[in-house]
Amino acid sequence: MRNILLTLKYDGTNYHGWQIQENAVTVQQVLADAIEKITKQKIMPTGCSRTDSGVHANMFCCNFKSDITLPDKEIIKALNGNLPFDVVVTDCMTVNDDFHARYDCKSKEYIYRIVASPVRNPFLENYAIHYKYPLNIDDMNYAAKQLIGTHDFSAFCSVGSNVQSTERQIFNAEFSKKDDLVTFSIEGDGFLYNMVRIIVGTMLYVSQGKIKKEDIHNIILSKNRENAGPTAPAKALFLNKVNY
Amino acid sequence: MRNILLTLKYDGTNYHGWQIQENAVTVQQVLADAIEKITKQKIMPTGCSRTDSGVHANMFCCNFKSDITLPDKEIIKALNGNLPFDVVVTDCMTVNDDFHARYDCKSKEYIYRIVASPVRNPFLENYAIHYKYPLNIDDMNYAAKQLIGTHDFSAFCSVGSNVQSTERQIFNAEFSKKDDLVTFSIEGDGFLYNMVRIIVGTMLYVSQGKIKKEDIHNIILSKNRENAGPTAPAKALFLNKVNY
Repeated sequence: MRNILLTLKYDGTNYHGWQIQENAVTVQQVLADAIEKITKQKIMPTGCSRTDSGVHANMFCCNFKSDITLPDKEIIKALNGNLPFDVVVTDCMTVNDDFHARYDCKSKEYIYRIVASPVRNPFLENYAIHYKYPLNIDDMNYAAKQLIGTHDFSAFCSVGSNVQSTERQIFNAEFSKKDDLVTFSIEGDGFLYNMVRIIVGTMLYVSQGKIKKEDIHNIILSKNRENAGPTAPAKALFLNKVNY
Repeated sequence: MRNILLTLKYDGTNYHGWQIQENAVTVQQVLADAIEKITKQKIMPTGCSRTDSGVHANMFCCNFKSDITLPDKEIIKALNGNLPFDVVVTDCMTVNDDFHARYDCKSKEYIYRIVASPVRNPFLENYAIHYKYPLNIDDMNYAAKQLIGTHDFSAFCSVGSNVQSTERQIFNAEFSKKDDLVTFSIEGDGFLYNMVRIIVGTMLYVSQGKIKKEDIHNIILSKNRENAGPTAPAKALFLNKVNY
């Protein structure tokens, strides 16, 4: 039995996230369908994380076990021949038996994109939010730095998740700007439900002066979701990198 | 009466090009509808060029005459408030009475994008063509250089156009590559019907060895459409810059 690690890239616009569910099209489902086409077996791939409805992935990893005999490179072609245009397998490797796409993940990087301009960018309608007013990047970066380190991020977690620990380590969190496009990058050993989107919503409140840039520490310590900002829209969020 | 010059950006995926026509949605039509909303007059804007169905514009210019009293900046907001998400007015200026968006255009730049990779890029499905095999950029650039200058480009013009002259001046034509994305840029004083797409199709034939890289001169001189390559798909073409 081979343990096969796939790397994907997908446009999440038309999907209800990664995780399979009834009455909705998900990335896990269309990938399982493609795997069934080439292996003739019903096999559910294990993802590195769940992504929400509308969230995209520049890089997403998953693994599945199969006795398929095709070489790795041929698996890429065979799966891509059976996947819709918006989900693409970019790499395939046969890995150790005990490799697990979720548990073995050392860190993930997400990016969140904001078109900061009086006018919209029609090409980024499904891939960024539009923010009409000037953004105070310096204040947002001052605030974002306070996220770095190991903290209980309950204040940045949507109600309804049931994880064992709400402690996560953030390695890096930073806004950068190129022309009209502001990109927030955040890397951590893991993320709670909606955590990146709540962080972005909080940082936009910092830019607007609704939350003081010095207050992120206190919001973390409060462990109270009500003290953080709103959950920013999903469509601008990309899982950007997965490290093992 | 003011003469108003608008600069647009649009995603052409959902449009049958710029030019108004019956039974099809065009950019000119949705813009005319928005102009009517704010001026209460039926006014047809004059475009800098026609773009084909599915072709995009990072920059497109058009002008219209109206006695509207709104300041230029307010016209941008008012029009954007009445346009669909995929057509955006990025600038507005009141110009001389005799300014004409098409006749006064000194040069235009188009770009054409090619994902040159064994796997597709799901995010560029409507904005680039996918080319699975290695591209010979050096040969294509050697061929493209022969386009520069003033020539009769009949060989690179689709049948069915009725222009007075088929002579055009090309200032620059070059392929560049960044990671998997190959971009062809071409600037000229004007372009014949499907000219850029036929040039790209011809350059792909050069890369494949189906047309010799030295033969572009002869193809131009032949004035025979049959000697050039096929017309490349519309979705990867962008009007990128318009100079007055």
